[in-house]
Amino acid sequence: MDDDELRDALREIVGPSAVAVAPDLNPDDLHDESLHAPTATPRAVVHPGSTAEVAALCAWASAHAVPLTARGSGTGLSGGASPVRGGIVVSFSRMNRLLRLELDDHVAVVQPGITLRELNEALRPHALRYPVHPGELSGSLGGNVNLRPHALRYPVHPGELSGSLGGNVNTNAGGMRAVRHGVTRHHVIGLEAVLVDGTVVRTGGPVVKLSSGYDLTQLLIGSEGTLALVTEVTLRLSPTFAHSATVLVPFATLEEVTRVVPSIIASGLEPSMTEYIDLVTMRAITDAASLELGVSADVAAATTAYLVVVLETRTGAQLERDLEDLAQMLEDAGALDTYVLAGGVARRLIEARERMFWAAKAAGANDIVDIVVPRSKVVDLLGAATRLAREHGAIVTGCGHVGDGNVHLSVFQGDDERRRALLHDLFAYGLSLGGAISGEHGIGRDKQEPYLALSDPALIDLQRRIKAVFDPAHLLNPYRLLDDRPAP
Amino acid sequence: MDDDELRDALREIVGPSAVAVAPDLNPDDLHDESLHAPTATPRAVVHPGSTAEVAALCAWASAHAVPLTARGSGTGLSGGASPVRGGIVVSFSRMNRLLRLELDDHVAVVQPGITLRELNEALRPHALRYPVHPGELSGSLGGNVNLRPHALRYPVHPGELSGSLGGNVNTNAGGMRAVRHGVTRHHVIGLEAVLVDGTVVRTGGPVVKLSSGYDLTQLLIGSEGTLALVTEVTLRLSPTFAHSATVLVPFATLEEVTRVVPSIIASGLEPSMTEYIDLVTMRAITDAASLELGVSADVAAATTAYLVVVLETRTGAQLERDLEDLAQMLEDAGALDTYVLAGGVARRLIEARERMFWAAKAAGANDIVDIVVPRSKVVDLLGAATRLAREHGAIVTGCGHVGDGNVHLSVFQGDDERRRALLHDLFAYGLSLGGAISGEHGIGRDKQEPYLALSDPALIDLQRRIKAVFDPAHLLNPYRLLDDRPAP
Repeated sequence: MDDDELRDALREIVGPSAVAVAPDLNPDDLHDESLHAPTATPRAVVHPGSTAEVAALCAWASAHAVPLTARGSGTGLSGGASPVRGGIVVSFSRMNRLLRLELDDHVAVVQPGITLRELNEALRPHALRYPVHPGELSGSLGGNVNLRPHALRYPVHPGELSGSLGGNVNTNAGGMRAVRHGVTRHHVIGLEAVLVDGTVVRTGGPVVKLSSGYDLTQLLIGSEGTLALVTEVTLRLSPTFAHSATVLVPFATLEEVTRVVPSIIASGLEPSMTEYIDLVTMRAITDAASLELGVSADVAAATTAYLVVVLETRTGAQLERDLEDLAQMLEDAGALDTYVLAGGVARRLIEARERMFWAAKAAGANDIVDIVVPRSKVVDLLGAATRLAREHGAIVTGCGHVGDGNVHLSVFQGDDERRRALLHDLFAYGLSLGGAISGEHGIGRDKQEPYLALSDPALIDLQRRIKAVFDPAHLLNPYRLLDDRPAP
Repeated sequence: MDDDELRDALREIVGPSAVAVAPDLNPDDLHDESLHAPTATPRAVVHPGSTAEVAALCAWASAHAVPLTARGSGTGLSGGASPVRGGIVVSFSRMNRLLRLELDDHVAVVQPGITLRELNEALRPHALRYPVHPGELSGSLGGNVNLRPHALRYPVHPGELSGSLGGNVNTNAGGMRAVRHGVTRHHVIGLEAVLVDGTVVRTGGPVVKLSSGYDLTQLLIGSEGTLALVTEVTLRLSPTFAHSATVLVPFATLEEVTRVVPSIIASGLEPSMTEYIDLVTMRAITDAASLELGVSADVAAATTAYLVVVLETRTGAQLERDLEDLAQMLEDAGALDTYVLAGGVARRLIEARERMFWAAKAAGANDIVDIVVPRSKVVDLLGAATRLAREHGAIVTGCGHVGDGNVHLSVFQGDDERRRALLHDLFAYGLSLGGAISGEHGIGRDKQEPYLALSDPALIDLQRRIKAVFDPAHLLNPYRLLDDRPAP
């Protein structure tokens, strides 16, 4: 099929204004936020407006053996939504509506292109929220971040900053509130999805209990666009809390941070966030945000690790009591001081923490990893990271969701081979602790090599055979996750 | 293979004392608690003691094309663990240990045969619990329950009453605390499982975030023993709450109950249970337990529906305030009165509610269903149940997890055809409301006919092809769920 035929066929399906064909492609649609995945040029980018159009597109792609790459807002960090040469990018930018809001059921039905920010803005008047809070790319950008040339859309379209719900489903996004509220798969209760042959299926529904057949909703969540194209997401919402406080706690050692977090959780205080930020990262994110936290000079001098705890409660009285108990617990654990941050500063710190990725990028990081281990093993993992960094001539800095063991490391080592060796050893060590290569970013293309090398071949084989049930011709997001054929 | 050869082969695998061969089978092992599934006699019941033995058993069964039926403690309600003629029952009665308890991580690793009660007893000294609380079969039996002759093991072995964790995994058990704590799939983070060819795989792990390949843990949860045999379960635990209160609230109408529940949940009070009990059911369960709730005669006379709310908090002061706010909310919603039950009475009411199934069974119920619908649709569903009962000459009574829309109905209609017609119409109506046939009991054999008749054929086809990936020869729990071939 030549380019004209291709364009005409796609226009027939999604309408003339929703098709762009190479070379007239918008560069914004051609990458995600992976730090080093090479970008291939697809034949076209389409912006379907309905499930019926997605279904027609899949049927057409199957008939012509054309690969399809689903794309939300492109905030992924693993190369999972980057295009394939010869393929078509299916952007959900137009399918971005809140379709239904069932207030009594605390259920929302959304299209995959809606962002977390758009969704939560629509929910706010009802004192509801979608509680999953994947941080890295949800904040607004600081002015002093050194953007890659092709990422210019960020300052231009700040409204697009959040990840899309469809992207969240595809990676099982987690984020900072997982310690209390869980991750995407705990809040997505139903999907509409288009199979590669164009069949539309609905899995699950607006119910929070289900024991009626294999849970295909859960199978699709985290499948990185390789099994089906998600066209509708049914979400379980939570009431917002009226009162909250953000507590910043400097500690002399990381060990003290990781020791106190389990006791905070065991206390029943139910923190919404328990974030660990190392010294280098704290400086980078506060500098980038020009943020003054008010930590006294002598405390700052003795600090090597910061803990940030967020409490949320129904009543002000409860918050006060919880804060007192938390402060006592922190003091007993050796905290150098405890700062309850003022609302504005607290919000800016969380936003700055969300921007950690951009700070690392601006500082020239060569990779971002998000290994997850049992929370009691975070010290071991970070110790190994420091040791391996030394061995491989690299710098590794980090922060992490210390309540759930999901550690975000920025790796600075420009030599691909040395960095690869470091990461291989680090992933292998994380796995030996009972962990996994990615807690929330996904495997995509960037982590494919260590994932396939370090996983049980029996599990890879099972997954590949499940993939073949859904997409035997490898048309949906090929060359990602399980598919290690050389990309064209 | 003749019976002697079979016995010798099985003894070789699991040891002589762990094999029973027909006709010398323990009747306790030959059924679950389905009210009307016919029982078939298997060729043998084996009690493996280790994963290695389960693996050897699967390899042997594959080589000889012998069906295997996994069995926990046999408390299922859908005929999902009842034996197959010519097959072998794999009982996990000996694989019932708590293998590891990671206190800092709030993680437990258990064998599938451990019961909820055994697990929670082991956790209690650590102020931890596994918060999923599937009710029906977890309570101890009242003396006046009319047991089926072959269920005699209950009074004899009261320690076995609880469901097993393995059974909970296979049905994605839910229960009374789901409104706050979710269901089995929200707390199971890893599995060890044996594939039908004897391969042992480990999915997930002791981490609460994961984005590293298809989530096979979630696929196995709720698969009713048809994909693999689960040999180890890794669980996420929760801290216990120091303070709790159980509130009994009589209402004049069911509509008032279903109207107030969303507002309680929206308030942020985070109730651990919100149970609806109809008048007939309340009388049956309190009579069975000789329980006096202290509801005054005039209130009782005006009541048609009871709401039970359980609050759990970290501090006593918070519980007092929460109770005041709850009482105000209930009064505003038209509650006839509000009783905070004394500890002993509260525990006995919850236990009696757990025994609803036995009360219904004693009263001669012909079926138990657990349709789930959005919680705002519970009134519609119960209205339809009343109407359909009238049309089909039946009596339908019920109670339900009204916070999550999971309604338990006892159906009294001895004529199989009329009952089947009633249930078909009721299931179809539940599905039209966005619900599903089973919220927590599973499909098994009992609900197979309506499930297959009322589901999207594309979804059934996908599931059958996934089944073929795991078990192409239909050896794992055949004739259940998706497999509607006539049983031998």
